[in-house]
Amino acid sequence: MKATVFHAARDVRVESVPDPVLKAPTDVLVRVVNAAICGSDLWPYRGVAKWTGGARLGHEFTGIVEAIGTEVRAVRVGQFVAAPFSYADGSCAFCAAHLYTSCARAGFWGGLDDDGGQGEFVRVPFADATLVAIPDAVRDDPAKRTAALALTDVMGTGYHGAVSAGTVPGGTVVVIGDGAVGLCAVLSARYIGAERIVAVGHHPDRLQLAKRFGATEIVDSHAADAGRSIVELTSGGSPSVVEAVGVQSSLDLALETVRDGGTVAFVGVPAGMETLSFRRLFSGNVALRGALAPVRAYLPELMSALAAGAIDPSPVFTHQLPLDGAPAGYKAMDERVAIKVCLTVSSP
Amino acid sequence: MKATVFHAARDVRVESVPDPVLKAPTDVLVRVVNAAICGSDLWPYRGVAKWTGGARLGHEFTGIVEAIGTEVRAVRVGQFVAAPFSYADGSCAFCAAHLYTSCARAGFWGGLDDDGGQGEFVRVPFADATLVAIPDAVRDDPAKRTAALALTDVMGTGYHGAVSAGTVPGGTVVVIGDGAVGLCAVLSARYIGAERIVAVGHHPDRLQLAKRFGATEIVDSHAADAGRSIVELTSGGSPSVVEAVGVQSSLDLALETVRDGGTVAFVGVPAGMETLSFRRLFSGNVALRGALAPVRAYLPELMSALAAGAIDPSPVFTHQLPLDGAPAGYKAMDERVAIKVCLTVSSP
Repeated sequence: MKATVFHAARDVRVESVPDPVLKAPTDVLVRVVNAAICGSDLWPYRGVAKWTGGARLGHEFTGIVEAIGTEVRAVRVGQFVAAPFSYADGSCAFCAAHLYTSCARAGFWGGLDDDGGQGEFVRVPFADATLVAIPDAVRDDPAKRTAALALTDVMGTGYHGAVSAGTVPGGTVVVIGDGAVGLCAVLSARYIGAERIVAVGHHPDRLQLAKRFGATEIVDSHAADAGRSIVELTSGGSPSVVEAVGVQSSLDLALETVRDGGTVAFVGVPAGMETLSFRRLFSGNVALRGALAPVRAYLPELMSALAAGAIDPSPVFTHQLPLDGAPAGYKAMDERVAIKVCLTVSSP
Repeated sequence: MKATVFHAARDVRVESVPDPVLKAPTDVLVRVVNAAICGSDLWPYRGVAKWTGGARLGHEFTGIVEAIGTEVRAVRVGQFVAAPFSYADGSCAFCAAHLYTSCARAGFWGGLDDDGGQGEFVRVPFADATLVAIPDAVRDDPAKRTAALALTDVMGTGYHGAVSAGTVPGGTVVVIGDGAVGLCAVLSARYIGAERIVAVGHHPDRLQLAKRFGATEIVDSHAADAGRSIVELTSGGSPSVVEAVGVQSSLDLALETVRDGGTVAFVGVPAGMETLSFRRLFSGNVALRGALAPVRAYLPELMSALAAGAIDPSPVFTHQLPLDGAPAGYKAMDERVAIKVCLTVSSP
């Protein structure tokens, strides 16, 4: 089959690799329909994360079940399914608590040991626990199909951020970062019913999309008085802040704009967060919550919301390309031309 | 009047100072009955916090109301009252949310601007909002009277720590630190109804007191495998960890022993916390919550629990001294001979 393979920084290629086969009786094989390129895929691409040549890429995909292992019960051949960005065994205490990312047998797609999402086929371990069926109403609507792809990572992550920051109906939330995850956090906050949603970023086009997604205010993060503006807009600080960038300046802005007693949830892998004002946390009774999204926990609800038309994260996909276009997709995201790229690998 | 005054590191004196007078119509004057010496009083005493000579000491006291301002409504002359370690105006949004420590007009007893608790009299601002009446059942019982003094800071702080860490009935909590606050966190966890309470420290006598207070297990924090032991005792880590020391090694132990998805609450002013593993927070969905206790919020409930015999934190006071004994009390705490010192200033 064809799959996207990492060779070196800024050298990813779509090339022939061995076809995956069922290994465990709980595995299924999925023929990929759509796959996405993630902001975090840019780390190896940019050489920030040191990957080994030959590693597979991609952790966001939807597809059709082609074959199932002998112990698979919930998943059926022919079913259209979505996979969260990590798999888990579904049988441990953490999975029972829906904290799938802490499952001892959890794994992430791609790398040297697993198939990546950006390929023609994926072997899915623990398929009953991992995969979520996509309803026909979504399968048969191209826009919703694209939106379903967003649920596998960025929308689930944005939603987890909003939830982890304590966003409540009628409440106030600040979202720092206008990438796909930040935008999805805005959309999630609106879906939850927050009344005031402040989107913070520095890309005018993305902030406009944040407005479409439900932001009631937008703030330029590069403005010298960004922090003060946000505090004023939120009448003294926000009880909920989602940090969706992962760098020090963004964390600092979050701690400047969170209201005493509130929560800052950071949803991206920390990349250059070095210091923390423990005094700020202490004096203000502020909680800092790490929030690696257990996307599987949210997929059923978000899929229903998508089918019902209550959410539509599809606009985060600014570019549509075939699988062979993956290298061009990486380039477009690296150069910030694209917010997020959707690869169409096969027909549903 | 006589009051305890800071002169220099390891030089505190009980000496004559001007009698306080009512300044605002919301003030009352309290004649101090009992005052405590706090672990945090040792910071100026040891020269760690750089204080100015002449500053008053003490932020924990109970006493009799001697005079009230013209706008005082809830507090009456002759009433026996407890004061939380900080006062607040009672009328702002933070006070309404019971986050009294974040009140813009909050103040701490002592220093250069306010009377300290370790003196004969204290002028109490915002008295209606600040003071809590002590019932006769407590007033008339010397042990309960001493226990009431603990409610003004260490017990309220320990309770806030347990609550902030998410301690629930039937749950599991780890308390790191065997000082007065850590011990009170253990007592609070038992009061809340936690089933498994692991006390961590390195003073055998204090850990024995932790057992009396309800610890189901004790762990020597200086043991090389302390972290692993705690993780084993808690079947893979505790959902709730109270960090009651305030130093880096203690924070690190907290993050090692908190269960994924859990909360670490730190209740002491950070003293030498420098670094944080953001990755640990992120990957484990762990929350780090600063927890400066809004003691006033808990005083009514804890006072009722004390009156009813449901809690008795009085054993944290290992030493009883008259006001003139304050310098000796500081010395005993500095040398770790005393866990906590109760000064008896006058009769109730």
